Amino acid sequence: MGSSGNGSFDPSASRGGASASVDKGVDFANYFCTYGYLYHQKEMLADRVRMDAYFNAVFQNKHHFQGKVVLDVGTGSGILAIWCAQAGARKVYAVEATKMADHARELVRGNNVDDIVEVIEGSIEDVTLPEKVDVIISEWMGYFLLRESMFDSVICARDRWLKPDGVMYPSHARMWIAPIRSGLGDQKMNDFESAMRDWHCFVEDTENNYGVNMNILTKPFQEEHEKYYLKTSLWSNLHPDQLIGTAAVIKEIDCLTASVDEIRVVTSKFSLPINMDRTRLSALAGWFDVHFRGNKQNPAKNEIELTTAPSVENSTHWGQQVFMLHPVLRVNEGDELLISFSMHRSKENHRLMNVGLSYELQQSSGKRLPAVISKLYIE
Amino acid sequence: MGSSGNGSFDPSASRGGASASVDKGVDFANYFCTYGYLYHQKEMLADRVRMDAYFNAVFQNKHHFQGKVVLDVGTGSGILAIWCAQAGARKVYAVEATKMADHARELVRGNNVDDIVEVIEGSIEDVTLPEKVDVIISEWMGYFLLRESMFDSVICARDRWLKPDGVMYPSHARMWIAPIRSGLGDQKMNDFESAMRDWHCFVEDTENNYGVNMNILTKPFQEEHEKYYLKTSLWSNLHPDQLIGTAAVIKEIDCLTASVDEIRVVTSKFSLPINMDRTRLSALAGWFDVHFRGNKQNPAKNEIELTTAPSVENSTHWGQQVFMLHPVLRVNEGDELLISFSMHRSKENHRLMNVGLSYELQQSSGKRLPAVISKLYIE
Repeated sequence: MGSSGNGSFDPSASRGGASASVDKGVDFANYFCTYGYLYHQKEMLADRVRMDAYFNAVFQNKHHFQGKVVLDVGTGSGILAIWCAQAGARKVYAVEATKMADHARELVRGNNVDDIVEVIEGSIEDVTLPEKVDVIISEWMGYFLLRESMFDSVICARDRWLKPDGVMYPSHARMWIAPIRSGLGDQKMNDFESAMRDWHCFVEDTENNYGVNMNILTKPFQEEHEKYYLKTSLWSNLHPDQLIGTAAVIKEIDCLTASVDEIRVVTSKFSLPINMDRTRLSALAGWFDVHFRGNKQNPAKNEIELTTAPSVENSTHWGQQVFMLHPVLRVNEGDELLISFSMHRSKENHRLMNVGLSYELQQSSGKRLPAVISKLYIE
Repeated sequence: MGSSGNGSFDPSASRGGASASVDKGVDFANYFCTYGYLYHQKEMLADRVRMDAYFNAVFQNKHHFQGKVVLDVGTGSGILAIWCAQAGARKVYAVEATKMADHARELVRGNNVDDIVEVIEGSIEDVTLPEKVDVIISEWMGYFLLRESMFDSVICARDRWLKPDGVMYPSHARMWIAPIRSGLGDQKMNDFESAMRDWHCFVEDTENNYGVNMNILTKPFQEEHEKYYLKTSLWSNLHPDQLIGTAAVIKEIDCLTASVDEIRVVTSKFSLPINMDRTRLSALAGWFDVHFRGNKQNPAKNEIELTTAPSVENSTHWGQQVFMLHPVLRVNEGDELLISFSMHRSKENHRLMNVGLSYELQQSSGKRLPAVISKLYIE
């Protein structure tokens, strides 16, 4: 057989785990295992935008932490928990599902806050704390905010363990979409066409050399490859110059009140005005921001924003998700893209997303191009 | 968080699944899912060495198939089953654990052998056939033969369903090891050292910018990276010129009689004579071959060999597994490497392997260098 550990073709699409009843072993094999590596932790810890935002959020708002009890959901290497202790927390519960908990415990000890920070290995859903907490801090955001579906665990923690007047860190989150120009789509189309040409040769060779007609698999092969090359969003760190219109907020989340039902499906109708003349609209880009504002009774002294928008100086490891549009549209300033967007979780793996997109170009001349409907994937 | 689907760092090491009691869902998420992709099937189907061997084995030994009942274990796209039907089998049971079974069924129909080939979706361990079979055919070989542990399923099929005088396709298998020269080890050592330099900068930055001392994680970070860069075998298609000594067979398997106990652990003591002067012994290469010989009562008319040894013209998708030796040894013609080798299954994932290696260089001068002991991984 020869199944490669590091295939170039991402098998994540058929990773197991279902939304309704998630098999914990499968979910661990598919998802949590990644977070058990220091390599991966370091990638997140070396993201200056991410680090600065949380660091400033905590140390510029010490009043939220001094003498308080904090819960860190998914502490990883434990750095947020350590900061909370350094900012004056009386007690920090740092919960981590992977073996990274052992490293977190070491790090806590090495930084002399082991009298304050208690690292607990386990799923937040299974953990019992001896008390309610004043603050929940968590870095739960996946690509395009909701990939990974980790906010579910934060909601669970909040409903079980946050005091009525407690504070969420971050307190708010938003999802953004913008029209962009990019060569990525052309490149992927070339890759796709090349894979199909290769397939046709393969079919011919197999018939000639081995007497088996493979042609009946051409359609499923094409579908598999269309999904992989053309319909799966791409990670990218875009240059702001690639934006060709105004970005729109398609979802706002109040972390203090949001329910799982509210985030399980995201739907939005919105329009994206084009502000560049004679250019190509080749994709939509999706990203997110979160804010640290405290709550109404107990607001932040210094509100902090963490944004993953396209940026030259402040790019993040999240980058942006690029949803390719095929075919590319020729657009002009004054045109408007009318979009109906929906995102729901993949049935096969609740941590991955399926996106439904329907869009029409309203030209400044008044002409409206026919609607295009497409189904895309965030894997 | 931002967990990438396509990380550059292979998380397979902590994929679940245990030898004693394998969680089927976890095993599917980790292993079988790969085989659900036509992309991956095509990679195997386009391997001419592999295809020619099975094709010739079947069609040059039609007497094993004419009027006979055949079981294909892990049929994938179904090609071996179709060949068996074309070679005159009366009935072929083609068992496949993944959704690839649907495609196999289509392919069988498209090649007009659906009256003979019955595709059954399921694990071979769970399948009940209405009769015993004359032949079991299977392409079960993983990297260095036993990675994937799929031969277990073939043994299970054989013990349950093969008639006493039945034939195994292939009938025999061997594992080989040879001394080689290669730049791969230097390259990986550079990667490792660069990762460690980067880590030390990171530790300094994190202390300066965020007041947290990460140094306590330096040792586990180093261990994690040593394993990944230096102790994990590499896939490679070696040039025969890279061989600097005589290859040794370290394991022979008779597919008709082998038990799971016999393959669960592989141990061998052997020596590798060096036949090149003033060169570097930088790694050992492991590969396998299999033979199609029929059985004693009913031998093959034409014995076929499938070898994955280093070759310019006949390389395979299996390539060779390269086990790096650190430090590299300077060797000369007439030297001999005395090796004690053991391989057993990873506790975390029974489809991956841990290798124990102890080696001493016996120089032609009579001097023997101190033994080196190392633990390596096939992931």
